Amino acid sequence: MQQYSNSTKPKPAPSHQMDSSSVDSSADVAISESVVNKPTAMRLFSEIPTSRPTTPLLDTINSPADLKPLNQQQLLTLADELREYLLYSAGQSGGHFGANLGVVELTIALHYLLDTPKDKLVWDVGHQAYAHKVLTGRRDRLSTIRSKQGLTAFPERQESEYDTFGVGHSSTSISAGLGMSLALRHLKSDAKVACVIGDGAMTGGMAFEALNDAVQQDADLLVVLNDNDMSISCSIGGFSRHLAMLWESGYQVDITAKGKPKLTHRPEMPLSERRARHSALRDIPKVADNLFKAIGFSYFGPFDGHDLPELLRVLECAKNVSGPVLVHVYTTKGKGFIPAEGDPVKYHAISKILQQPEAQQAQSEATKPVVKKKYSQVFGEFLCDKAAVDNKLIAITPAMEEGSGMTEFAQQYPEQFFDVAIAEQHAVTLAAGMATLDVKPIVAIYSTFLQRGYDQLIHDVALQNLDVTFGIDRAGLVGEDGATHAGVFDLAYMRCVPNLVIATPKDENECYHLLNTCYDYKGATAVRYPRGTGPGVEITKPAQNYEVGKAVVDAVYQAQDSAQNSNSQKLALLAFGPMAATADAAAKALMAETDLQGPAEISVVNMRWVKPLDTQLIDELIAKGYTHIVTLEEHAVMGGAGSAVNEYLLNHTSGIEQQLDIKNIGIADEFIAHGSHDEQLADCGLDVAGVTSQLRRLFAAQ
Amino acid sequence: MQQYSNSTKPKPAPSHQMDSSSVDSSADVAISESVVNKPTAMRLFSEIPTSRPTTPLLDTINSPADLKPLNQQQLLTLADELREYLLYSAGQSGGHFGANLGVVELTIALHYLLDTPKDKLVWDVGHQAYAHKVLTGRRDRLSTIRSKQGLTAFPERQESEYDTFGVGHSSTSISAGLGMSLALRHLKSDAKVACVIGDGAMTGGMAFEALNDAVQQDADLLVVLNDNDMSISCSIGGFSRHLAMLWESGYQVDITAKGKPKLTHRPEMPLSERRARHSALRDIPKVADNLFKAIGFSYFGPFDGHDLPELLRVLECAKNVSGPVLVHVYTTKGKGFIPAEGDPVKYHAISKILQQPEAQQAQSEATKPVVKKKYSQVFGEFLCDKAAVDNKLIAITPAMEEGSGMTEFAQQYPEQFFDVAIAEQHAVTLAAGMATLDVKPIVAIYSTFLQRGYDQLIHDVALQNLDVTFGIDRAGLVGEDGATHAGVFDLAYMRCVPNLVIATPKDENECYHLLNTCYDYKGATAVRYPRGTGPGVEITKPAQNYEVGKAVVDAVYQAQDSAQNSNSQKLALLAFGPMAATADAAAKALMAETDLQGPAEISVVNMRWVKPLDTQLIDELIAKGYTHIVTLEEHAVMGGAGSAVNEYLLNHTSGIEQQLDIKNIGIADEFIAHGSHDEQLADCGLDVAGVTSQLRRLFAAQ
Repeated sequence: MQQYSNSTKPKPAPSHQMDSSSVDSSADVAISESVVNKPTAMRLFSEIPTSRPTTPLLDTINSPADLKPLNQQQLLTLADELREYLLYSAGQSGGHFGANLGVVELTIALHYLLDTPKDKLVWDVGHQAYAHKVLTGRRDRLSTIRSKQGLTAFPERQESEYDTFGVGHSSTSISAGLGMSLALRHLKSDAKVACVIGDGAMTGGMAFEALNDAVQQDADLLVVLNDNDMSISCSIGGFSRHLAMLWESGYQVDITAKGKPKLTHRPEMPLSERRARHSALRDIPKVADNLFKAIGFSYFGPFDGHDLPELLRVLECAKNVSGPVLVHVYTTKGKGFIPAEGDPVKYHAISKILQQPEAQQAQSEATKPVVKKKYSQVFGEFLCDKAAVDNKLIAITPAMEEGSGMTEFAQQYPEQFFDVAIAEQHAVTLAAGMATLDVKPIVAIYSTFLQRGYDQLIHDVALQNLDVTFGIDRAGLVGEDGATHAGVFDLAYMRCVPNLVIATPKDENECYHLLNTCYDYKGATAVRYPRGTGPGVEITKPAQNYEVGKAVVDAVYQAQDSAQNSNSQKLALLAFGPMAATADAAAKALMAETDLQGPAEISVVNMRWVKPLDTQLIDELIAKGYTHIVTLEEHAVMGGAGSAVNEYLLNHTSGIEQQLDIKNIGIADEFIAHGSHDEQLADCGLDVAGVTSQLRRLFAAQ
Repeated sequence: MQQYSNSTKPKPAPSHQMDSSSVDSSADVAISESVVNKPTAMRLFSEIPTSRPTTPLLDTINSPADLKPLNQQQLLTLADELREYLLYSAGQSGGHFGANLGVVELTIALHYLLDTPKDKLVWDVGHQAYAHKVLTGRRDRLSTIRSKQGLTAFPERQESEYDTFGVGHSSTSISAGLGMSLALRHLKSDAKVACVIGDGAMTGGMAFEALNDAVQQDADLLVVLNDNDMSISCSIGGFSRHLAMLWESGYQVDITAKGKPKLTHRPEMPLSERRARHSALRDIPKVADNLFKAIGFSYFGPFDGHDLPELLRVLECAKNVSGPVLVHVYTTKGKGFIPAEGDPVKYHAISKILQQPEAQQAQSEATKPVVKKKYSQVFGEFLCDKAAVDNKLIAITPAMEEGSGMTEFAQQYPEQFFDVAIAEQHAVTLAAGMATLDVKPIVAIYSTFLQRGYDQLIHDVALQNLDVTFGIDRAGLVGEDGATHAGVFDLAYMRCVPNLVIATPKDENECYHLLNTCYDYKGATAVRYPRGTGPGVEITKPAQNYEVGKAVVDAVYQAQDSAQNSNSQKLALLAFGPMAATADAAAKALMAETDLQGPAEISVVNMRWVKPLDTQLIDELIAKGYTHIVTLEEHAVMGGAGSAVNEYLLNHTSGIEQQLDIKNIGIADEFIAHGSHDEQLADCGLDVAGVTSQLRRLFAAQ
């Protein structure tokens, strides 16, 4: 059921109406005068539609060109339809949610005013690109988003010519857009470039680097700051406070029809909640120092990003200002969907709404599933348990409190919890700075985002041999978020770094104890664990310390079949992380095959540590006549844990006297597209069937 | 000969004198009133002393505690002695120069006012830490700087308790200092933290991330912005323009004795040269928007950083202000040394002054050395040659125009040259943005600094398969700059990234043609070349394209000795980059040994490409009976080029039927300390003797 009501937002005052003097006289961008005086209220929704809503106007929009003939009233109607369609589609596919609802008006305005794809529209992060996808010919495929073969969760160049730059990680849009702008200048093109970046992404240092350079190049670049006071959680830090101050001052830098700034009273708006969070905002200056103006941008704002007529007026003027321009618009994450407006963190992304609730209920009663913990929950549980006995523990996250399972810790130990905003470089070096004194920092970070803090890991932590623990989440393939978020390079990029200890737990219980072991270890350590839930292994408390660099033989299987026994070949499966279970299942499957000239014995080893490697165990296996060594990891084969085994075996054993057959199972040298995690594993040959098949080939080949 | 003269700087006006109300009443920090009215002019130098100058006061300073009893006049004298001593020492050791002379007064003031090492003083980059080293007990060892076993070129924690944080890369100090401040808060310590960061380092995004977080944490943190309008070259971008505007406005935010801001006219100072560089500075506002205040810092400045009494007054007040504080001081790189003040880029670092010019002259006449090109010159030459025939070429550097050999290109093709300031992340993504259009960007970057742009390399370039060429300079060990600047991880961290082509030229000529090949290749490519000069191989023009992924057999040596022939073992040396020459020399040495049960045949292969690897050649070698395969690279063994060979041989050949002995020669799993490049190679066993010895052991062991 949908609820239609009037917005609580103050009605646009006459001053919001189109200033006809500011309208470009060319026919394709002029707003029809006839509709200027008819703004309508935004439709609000309180439930996610489960059946396809009727969207007659939206159905006519197959490319941005179809927007051009619309008048302002039609554009407003389109916004309502688009919002409802996004709600419906998100319910079908799951995925990012709040940010998309927040940019409905902005997306329409930009595609209406720009001449895409000739003009370049660059989205930052891409959480908010669903409306863009709908308006650029992908409406009917939107509900396939994040599914295998479906649309990607983010803009992707291969998907559409309107996706000018692939994203997923934040803070790249100004750099990429500046690159386009400079290339266009070199090519003597008059095409325009506009970037849309959220306030959360703006804290990422590379956005600042790009602002600095855009001024240096005096580039024609329109940056739209989509300020929703959120990254995924609430935005924090001086920058957020600054934006709040610009907002709370009650003034705005308006843009005149000629593109000049004009200081005016802002139309009356309710005070934002930021004031409460930013205690330093006690004294709001009439006109605050402006960071963007300071660095040399032309600044206009803040404007109401849901006031479509206002957006059209402002952006039409701003797009023709030369040099770097920033337009600051204030939007509400989840706008128009009442539950999301009230709890934007919860509604950052949503899960699929199942089509058949009856069937679901029937199933859940029949087979009550074991509630498995996510690895991030294990991490959070470890933090709380450890902090209870060790006051020196300090936990740091770059804007991933919820995702990293730290919410409870943050509540229980607020003085030992630091959310540093989207700022991976800083997060790592902040921890290094702390570790020079008598505290013990833990950095919670996704594998893919540690790529942003790689130099800091080497230069500030490992080189100085500082006692920092990394909880590396989302290691391995990550399912629906796809290639941008895959954590499949961390072992390669960390393994080469001296002084670093790297652990790979196979299940929740090991994760807990390896976190404890690495935390207690005096030096730089990393525990790498996957996205999502583990196999459901219970955690045996209290926390214990494993021996660093010591692997565990999980199982030894003897062949029952005489043909195999006569073969007498022995196979060791050296598994890293959750691949231990896969290795075990594959070993059983292999042993169950009677027609195979297979191994007489299989040992399944949970390697636990990538660095230091348990070379003693490897030596023992070889001494016991293991001729076949196969490594398994959910990571790129190139440079991964398997290659550590290779290096040891080749350089530290006399290979020429041994007849060893060594193979590495992992991810081939390609980026793996989105799909479910299971689908990805199967595609990579890393599910049980795939591994069994690879092992079978090993022996069949002989 | 030294020239003593009066500074051309205006004499400190009475307003510069100590405001006694601002002086802390505790005896150890109060400035003696008796000297307040006797400022003396700074001594200026025009030549670098070649013999140890007389520095009676400096000789008494063995730790910062020895500064405390000095009065202001003595501190001024100390500054002169310290400056002269730095000049002398730099002449002895070579090394960073201009930045050190620029912070003589600042270093004295900070160590005088702070209670180091209890209070934490954090230097950014560390180019400017020589004065700090002298004042903290390392005076007599300063001339050993950058030598093997000598002082490191940068602050290093193992070297001194006064070196609170190891540096070398820029922009880390605020993050590290904030980490210390938060740790001290947690430990309930009243120790203070001060960071010194240059304006060049401030453009690095992580500095901005740290500013943002410092405000969020409301941390007690004193940031001294040492604004010399330089990174290594002239600082550029909006941030530099902003600082210039603060300066040129003629106003300053002074600090009162109570730590409150007070806007005043700045004492008259000559206009800086920045105005000419920043054409946008036409209209200087009376009080510009202030970036630091915008983000929430207390801001004071700009102040004359060579006016020691002023510095003492300001910093004494600022250190007691709570919350994050930034003090902006303006200094001159090379201050007090007249030639350096006039050409600060040239004097960023200097070479050793040879002690015996006669001997040097005699030598140079006897053996006229061949003038060898630096690899960076080869890169610059390629840029100019290619741009002459390809207008689409665009070259990007993060603040390393000179270091990367791009000065001539920048002059010839100013519209195709982009210096983006110290901003590696942005540099990479800027190139990616350009590559989405019809231009061909080349990013010139040092191997160690590409670590800063690693995520961008993966996420913005390789994943999108964009046509960006990386010229990776300073790959391998880098000599005197030591472990912070070593480029020994790039192959490991790049090799795992799909879509990336990686070349390793063995000499200048190959470098030139591989740059051409990679530039012409449609996709992401990297050419990795070392610091310094090559072997002196002439470049054969015009540029040609090598076959991608095709190695070259440089030489095949047959054993003359019958014992070896009877052995019939064959050894293939698979060398990457300049190790090809080392491999060749080692092969010759090995063959010349008659008492060795060595190989009957040695092939020396210049592999040229790390990715794709020439697997066809490897197959051919094995087919020809090569049983011993040794890889050689100036890179970490872990995950390096050798491990690529391992992976291929183990996974794509049937190892069990072959009796292969595979070994990897490279850098062991440790950070390599500074010293000459030759010393480093010898220490790592990567010189000819070391490689020969390792090869000999290979056969001796059998």
